[in-house]
Amino acid sequence: MAASPATSRITATRRPTTSTSKSRFDRRLSSILAHAINVFYEKGYEGASMRDLSRASGMSLAGMYHYFESKEKLLYLIQRHTFSTIVEQLRGKLDSADDPEARIRILILNHLEYFLANQKAMKVLSHEDEVLKNGFGVEVRALKREYYRICRDVLDDFKRANQVHFSTRVAVLSLFGMMNWIYTWYKPRVDGDAAKLAQEMGDIFLSGIRDGKPARKFARVN
Amino acid sequence: MAASPATSRITATRRPTTSTSKSRFDRRLSSILAHAINVFYEKGYEGASMRDLSRASGMSLAGMYHYFESKEKLLYLIQRHTFSTIVEQLRGKLDSADDPEARIRILILNHLEYFLANQKAMKVLSHEDEVLKNGFGVEVRALKREYYRICRDVLDDFKRANQVHFSTRVAVLSLFGMMNWIYTWYKPRVDGDAAKLAQEMGDIFLSGIRDGKPARKFARVN
Repeated sequence: MAASPATSRITATRRPTTSTSKSRFDRRLSSILAHAINVFYEKGYEGASMRDLSRASGMSLAGMYHYFESKEKLLYLIQRHTFSTIVEQLRGKLDSADDPEARIRILILNHLEYFLANQKAMKVLSHEDEVLKNGFGVEVRALKREYYRICRDVLDDFKRANQVHFSTRVAVLSLFGMMNWIYTWYKPRVDGDAAKLAQEMGDIFLSGIRDGKPARKFARVN
Repeated sequence: MAASPATSRITATRRPTTSTSKSRFDRRLSSILAHAINVFYEKGYEGASMRDLSRASGMSLAGMYHYFESKEKLLYLIQRHTFSTIVEQLRGKLDSADDPEARIRILILNHLEYFLANQKAMKVLSHEDEVLKNGFGVEVRALKREYYRICRDVLDDFKRANQVHFSTRVAVLSLFGMMNWIYTWYKPRVDGDAAKLAQEMGDIFLSGIRDGKPARKFARVN
């Protein structure tokens, strides 16, 4: 994981303050989070211990407790980093497009690109969706809601522009399902890269919602 | 879980042979599997012990080891039961319909009905997808492939009938994703029952693949 604006937003409990140590700290933190992702991926969150996390990252067990307090905190930092990054990248890319269909294509490509570049992290996130409680959970859920709301607004713009009708909630969450489920089946040699998958899923999804005109819908149902 | 043809196919290692004890055995086995699903759901597969499983089901620890050998065997029995049942129910329902679109609607409704009626089991299965190794894993993967193949054939029939073109693999797996992901978001009061969701997802998915004509597709992309 390279240092990025999102990485620098990740703050552990006790953080050095000088700027040199800060960037070194960020790199170290990124590396520890990457190791923690591997451990959670291999052992599951429940099956992983602070000792496993310490061994994998090369930090002493005392150091792990000092900086991260608990494996819950590590999971929180991983989740916060992931959702902040996806949201930040999406906002940046959406700024460059006005066409509602193009914006949906951007959303799909951004999600799949991030997902395929961070498959282990995404599997950990899918599996440990409800582990975080209290403050950590509240913060991560707020980030997820932010992401959901951006996607919902993109779809609502499409509905207005094309005068079509469908449940935005079911459509957004169906699209998330199409995209997130790839961690169970994606094979690079068979399925190609994120751009190819985004094209194919985008074709199905966009045709699917473009057809949501009440007249045609009712004609089909009856 | 009621006794069903699929339940009776679930055979533990040492099984009594008389017919009276057989049906009692099946009921007892169904009840133990239901308790095991709860434990795996609450604690995760890694986090659950045979002691937890014994406590929840009311069977002695020695009895658990005698009849089930390991928690892996229990997970295998749960997975085998689930996929056998879904496949069996789907085959029965597909027999009654010839129209390719109606058959896709049947597939979606069958999947969502089973999913919503067995949400805990489906979450356990989604999470512990790759746990089973060797013989258990081989058998469950064969059942999953059987289910995948039925769905693939249903979609291929639709393609032929409508002379449309899309990747059947991406379409089937996207549809599985749309449907399976609901375990992360489904709220009965907001989203309604399986029939309502199946209608909405079916509308999006069927419009999505119906539009897969190369001429229109290329016109849209360029």
